[in-house]
Amino acid sequence: MREVCIVGVGMSQWGEVWRKSLRDLHTDAALAAVKNAGVDHLDSMYVGCMSGGLFVGQEHLASMLTDYMGMRGIAATRVESACASGGMAVRLAFIEVASGISDIVMASGVEKMTDCSGNEATYALATAADQEYEVFNGATFPGLYAMMAHAHMAKYGTTRRMLSTVAAKNHHNGSMNPVAQYPFKVTVEQVENSVMVADPLHILDCSPITDGAAAVILTTVDIAKKLGKPYVKILGSGIGTDTIQLAQRADMTTIKAATIAADKAFKMAGKTIKDVQFAEVHDCFTIAEIAVAESIGLYEPGKAGKAFLDGESALDGKFPINSSGGLKSKGHPVGATGVAQVVEVFKQLTGTAENGRQIPKSPRIGMTQNMGGSGGSSVVHIMEVGS
Amino acid sequence: MREVCIVGVGMSQWGEVWRKSLRDLHTDAALAAVKNAGVDHLDSMYVGCMSGGLFVGQEHLASMLTDYMGMRGIAATRVESACASGGMAVRLAFIEVASGISDIVMASGVEKMTDCSGNEATYALATAADQEYEVFNGATFPGLYAMMAHAHMAKYGTTRRMLSTVAAKNHHNGSMNPVAQYPFKVTVEQVENSVMVADPLHILDCSPITDGAAAVILTTVDIAKKLGKPYVKILGSGIGTDTIQLAQRADMTTIKAATIAADKAFKMAGKTIKDVQFAEVHDCFTIAEIAVAESIGLYEPGKAGKAFLDGESALDGKFPINSSGGLKSKGHPVGATGVAQVVEVFKQLTGTAENGRQIPKSPRIGMTQNMGGSGGSSVVHIMEVGS
Repeated sequence: MREVCIVGVGMSQWGEVWRKSLRDLHTDAALAAVKNAGVDHLDSMYVGCMSGGLFVGQEHLASMLTDYMGMRGIAATRVESACASGGMAVRLAFIEVASGISDIVMASGVEKMTDCSGNEATYALATAADQEYEVFNGATFPGLYAMMAHAHMAKYGTTRRMLSTVAAKNHHNGSMNPVAQYPFKVTVEQVENSVMVADPLHILDCSPITDGAAAVILTTVDIAKKLGKPYVKILGSGIGTDTIQLAQRADMTTIKAATIAADKAFKMAGKTIKDVQFAEVHDCFTIAEIAVAESIGLYEPGKAGKAFLDGESALDGKFPINSSGGLKSKGHPVGATGVAQVVEVFKQLTGTAENGRQIPKSPRIGMTQNMGGSGGSSVVHIMEVGS
Repeated sequence: MREVCIVGVGMSQWGEVWRKSLRDLHTDAALAAVKNAGVDHLDSMYVGCMSGGLFVGQEHLASMLTDYMGMRGIAATRVESACASGGMAVRLAFIEVASGISDIVMASGVEKMTDCSGNEATYALATAADQEYEVFNGATFPGLYAMMAHAHMAKYGTTRRMLSTVAAKNHHNGSMNPVAQYPFKVTVEQVENSVMVADPLHILDCSPITDGAAAVILTTVDIAKKLGKPYVKILGSGIGTDTIQLAQRADMTTIKAATIAADKAFKMAGKTIKDVQFAEVHDCFTIAEIAVAESIGLYEPGKAGKAFLDGESALDGKFPINSSGGLKSKGHPVGATGVAQVVEVFKQLTGTAENGRQIPKSPRIGMTQNMGGSGGSSVVHIMEVGS
């Protein structure tokens, strides 16, 4: 296997971007990444998208998007694993470059979620849960994550304030991210006084419905050196699955798919969590950031919430989490999220994070954790700045 | 890159399978393939499915399907490229084994198309065309392929009888396939007297709406030899794209994506079309079989129809095409079709095609050509029996 790295990244604007269609958003991110990398062609691309069919009535996305970015004819494949679709795209691009089949491959993600009604969007998102057992009985994602939060509170004494701390910290970081959908700060009191969605989760515990795209360019370390650009090596890539039905799990307080994915990624990288200095994790709801931090081995079960209260996950803390603002503040165009996490790690490792959200201690190794549904799938990448 | 081969194949029943859900159909095919291969685990799987979201309200398919086949936790990704989704799954499994990341990988495909109304199915399929330019203006696939047929007739003098010959030959072959949806023979006169769908295409020029699944197990040649089972090497894999909008193409009589995919696959294999002895090609409509046979270099443009009239593509002809019955008779569960093509090539190369549809001259090299939409994407594989 060849050594693989990232040499360029790009983002579209994120938010309720009513003047841009799915193909416009993707083209913005893709061409920004191509320009940033300084490459003159792509051999192949993987596009993460959860449900072009339900959100905008368009499948067969990958070919269409090559056409709109002026690269008709190149290899292109769309991949889907619900909200982990973007992370899967990065993984497949990594494997294709590592295998030697292709030299320059783009991994991108896109979702256009605001061209349908709120009910339609809720239905589309619910297809990441088990249609025949969960959705048929009325479950949607705020309800599923609320059950996980209650289970975590009952088992470990996790508090309402710990959840609020996640939201306040992520909005603080997101206020410095130029593409964030909600770049405003919130206090823990504002989170707790916001409207209730599914007890104990308030609206400010939930990531929003977002239009957006993100793209990264992968190549070999040899080619990156020739390009003479800063690059970030992918040391490890791991993927794990679990039942997508919450009720089938032995323990609702942990994300087993994330544990499997992290274990595999660390094994490939020859590293442990102690070697990593910061992470972008999948905070679709505030409780998810706590459960994931424990599932990837950063904290013992039940210990993350307290550490967050103590400021350990803040930008200047011991182990910064979601310096980008996370899904919570930056937004969550489901297919794009996993790619945008890699964009942020690239920026942090190359010292190019905007507007003062650069992690102060110049980290050298970071990681991403992306997941689908209530944790039925997860993808983890470990990355190190090139030298 | 490691040498990759197929060591086992499996199919579910195909047709209007009302007593089985998407997960049941997939599990039937997957476990049949695992049993056929004689492997005791899978490292990873790729599932091709065009639109779980629109057909059955279920995305996040790959994780769910690992769970239902008793393999919760393994790596799993769903891939989509409209009706070429299955071929893409085979390609990604091939790359993953070739790269050294995994040793035993399943490529499968599934679609459950009869749990919705005919209008809903037509809408779902139309998402493989350009929603904003083609579908918005009323185009559906029978109409798009009818335009390709008229263009081919105008440019090359292709006749109505040549189209009928494709249907009659494929139904003859399919009558010997135990999983075929429509295992009955039709005469050229029956095709021409069947109800008109979109001039010049009659209902018997069109592949049906089908429920079904197919699966193949890929591994290294070294492992296959240890398993002591017959195996089929994948010599080359190619993928091509084109605009998914028919109106944007310079020539509607050829499938450029198929030409690109075939060229790449032949280059990787170190072979030419002259080395290949039979093929499974994407006959979603009868005109497609003619256009594809020309696009992959088997015949000069405009020459395939005449050769088909002369019997060259029959089971005992010079170059048999669609010995399985093709999409036309076997059925076309869109995400599964590309995998089922590989199943047929495996059976023909290992001498295990059922009920007398074995190609008489014991071929050693075969190929598959799978495509999405009106030819916006295509995947080609070249395979050789192991020894």
